[in-house]
Amino acid sequence: MAEISPFAPKRFPRLPNIAGLRLGAGACGIKANMKSDLMVAVLDPGARVAGLFTRSATAGSTVRWCRDAIKGGAIRAIVVNSGNANVFTGKAGARDVVTTANTASRILSCAPLDVMVSATGVIGERLPIAKLIAALPRLLAEAKPGGWQETADAICTTDTFPKGAGAMARIGSVPVHIAGIAKGSGMIAPDMATMLAYVFTDAKIPAPVLRSLLKEACDTSFNAITVDSDTSTSDTVLLIATGAGQSHQRINRAGDLALSDFRAKLGIVMADLAQQIVGDGEGLSKFITITVLGAASDRAAKAIAMSVANSPLVKTACAGEDANWGRIVMAVGKAGERIDPEHLTIHVGGVRITERGASRRGYREAPVARHMKGGRIRIDIGAGIKGGRGQATVWTCDLTHGYISINANYRS
Amino acid sequence: MAEISPFAPKRFPRLPNIAGLRLGAGACGIKANMKSDLMVAVLDPGARVAGLFTRSATAGSTVRWCRDAIKGGAIRAIVVNSGNANVFTGKAGARDVVTTANTASRILSCAPLDVMVSATGVIGERLPIAKLIAALPRLLAEAKPGGWQETADAICTTDTFPKGAGAMARIGSVPVHIAGIAKGSGMIAPDMATMLAYVFTDAKIPAPVLRSLLKEACDTSFNAITVDSDTSTSDTVLLIATGAGQSHQRINRAGDLALSDFRAKLGIVMADLAQQIVGDGEGLSKFITITVLGAASDRAAKAIAMSVANSPLVKTACAGEDANWGRIVMAVGKAGERIDPEHLTIHVGGVRITERGASRRGYREAPVARHMKGGRIRIDIGAGIKGGRGQATVWTCDLTHGYISINANYRS
Repeated sequence: MAEISPFAPKRFPRLPNIAGLRLGAGACGIKANMKSDLMVAVLDPGARVAGLFTRSATAGSTVRWCRDAIKGGAIRAIVVNSGNANVFTGKAGARDVVTTANTASRILSCAPLDVMVSATGVIGERLPIAKLIAALPRLLAEAKPGGWQETADAICTTDTFPKGAGAMARIGSVPVHIAGIAKGSGMIAPDMATMLAYVFTDAKIPAPVLRSLLKEACDTSFNAITVDSDTSTSDTVLLIATGAGQSHQRINRAGDLALSDFRAKLGIVMADLAQQIVGDGEGLSKFITITVLGAASDRAAKAIAMSVANSPLVKTACAGEDANWGRIVMAVGKAGERIDPEHLTIHVGGVRITERGASRRGYREAPVARHMKGGRIRIDIGAGIKGGRGQATVWTCDLTHGYISINANYRS
Repeated sequence: MAEISPFAPKRFPRLPNIAGLRLGAGACGIKANMKSDLMVAVLDPGARVAGLFTRSATAGSTVRWCRDAIKGGAIRAIVVNSGNANVFTGKAGARDVVTTANTASRILSCAPLDVMVSATGVIGERLPIAKLIAALPRLLAEAKPGGWQETADAICTTDTFPKGAGAMARIGSVPVHIAGIAKGSGMIAPDMATMLAYVFTDAKIPAPVLRSLLKEACDTSFNAITVDSDTSTSDTVLLIATGAGQSHQRINRAGDLALSDFRAKLGIVMADLAQQIVGDGEGLSKFITITVLGAASDRAAKAIAMSVANSPLVKTACAGEDANWGRIVMAVGKAGERIDPEHLTIHVGGVRITERGASRRGYREAPVARHMKGGRIRIDIGAGIKGGRGQATVWTCDLTHGYISINANYRS
């Protein structure tokens, strides 16, 4: 068992109950030593869902199931196992997903397509479906409001702490609640979504509006993080509105001004979960925030920031607390985006390092080196494009001996 | 000092003298402890040159100089220092390149633009130009035929062995010679060319034809390797024809059939140098060959192969001798290229692992695990596209504790 990340929050946050939602978690024997490996979420009829999934061409059977099932916008349950990703397991693996959905649907008297299924863990090994099916009825029957931490625990793999975040928002003047959980630690370079995240609200919001809100919030949360540049085959984020809270004005479109507070709070919750994933990056010793300004577009700014965030040489320099800013120059250069080297600015820890295409006259390394000895490293980059307003912030972690140790021995 | 790579050749190869070329190497004091850090190549009048350079937007002053200087197609000298890359050093750094070219041109009585300049080492620090200029006249004066190993040594940075390769080819029935040197170990994901490589021939070939031959050979050599996905700001490969060997038929175009043996041998020499760079990848313990067949195009095949080659999770699995083929599935999936998961085939060490979108019935891990204990790992991937003929082979190495140790402490 790896040590708990130094960036773990002191305690799991207090999250509100979401009316219309019950949770359950337990051990069904997929993981060794009867560690918690199965979670369920049960929704009252009427809940609406939107989802984003990995763009991987080898996406797992559960992702393929969900992509299809989510089209209707209705949801009655989520079943998630950890310890086995059920990816690249062929027709048998696809049947296992159907069996799971069928079993839950019979117990809940709903359509199988109202059951979303996820899985996370080793790729390419057949899921021990009988164990899952044996444990499912009791978990569904005993699901109850609350229990966020146990549920967040049940979806962990190499994570060293469970991840949750929540907020209160207003739609018009009516208070609604948002709460979510996520998991992820390695194979994190989400492309549309992260490993696994489930965000719930008791607001009443139709599925197309949920989808639009989710996409927007993902851009600056789960799609703005990277641990190791490897994109999972299981990336899934679901946003679910039970509509069972206090009744608020009717919402028909994402642009409704009454959603502005909800939109802001959803963004905060999702960014919080995303940053917790980076803060549990495999083997990390530094949490790194990279902001790019002055690029040709937001898309270009993010590409530059990700190029720096994914650079093994930048990440190892951070691990070594080495103020080797030349590697940032290199990583900016290879991003394939337009920059102006003459006006490129690099700040580390708020200290400006460059000017006119070189290091700044009188630049002293000591304050930068001091900043890098801390746990949180800030890198700010000005792309220097004349009139460029593109900007982006991404979060990543360093690359350490710990990452190598964890991943050279994951299965053994 | 790092240990010598287990993939270093037993000895530096015997390389032919190239008529019309003299070489020199020595220490000018840029590196500590008077380690060899300066090389020169002097060409008789009449030599022709083609080059490919990094596509980095933060390319160094030497690369920007060469891009301009090479347009004329003539070359009288190459001056290369190691220990300092002269990158992101502003106008002063650009002036240092001009000073170098001017100094060499005065001594050789040629135009400054006939002098190619390269540099490799730390980014962002001013080059100690006075040391270089002080050492240059004697090095140019004493340059002589041969001396390949000393020259290859002088351009090394984190390399653990000097890299050279050569061949004899025929143009028509006339024998000509090819010999080259290269350096590189980290920051290796060449994009157009590798860190530094210089390939010479005594054949008489005009610059446009050289350029075409070089581009073609690069695709399957320097542009088919990656150590760590980081693209250098100094990538340069030059191909130089002195025209001073035995006289052969006149060559006017790259398609000339008389070039077929030369083209093949040039490809072999450049692939040999490229593989030596991977074989000296920072901290490596495994040399990995990845071949993709059955993709939609050669470009798609290379993108898939590079996605696998750059995956930290695949690389750490190799380091851990862990037959975790699910990570290969993941890396294929994230490549952004079309594949058919149902017909995707993965072989490791010649053992077929997958069929019909899952692991093969009766698949036994033991022979794959045995293969992975060896130093050379072979991964063959069939993308499964119906009628797909796209193919590519790339070379890479594993990601080890050694890479972290080297790069968390490079400057200190």
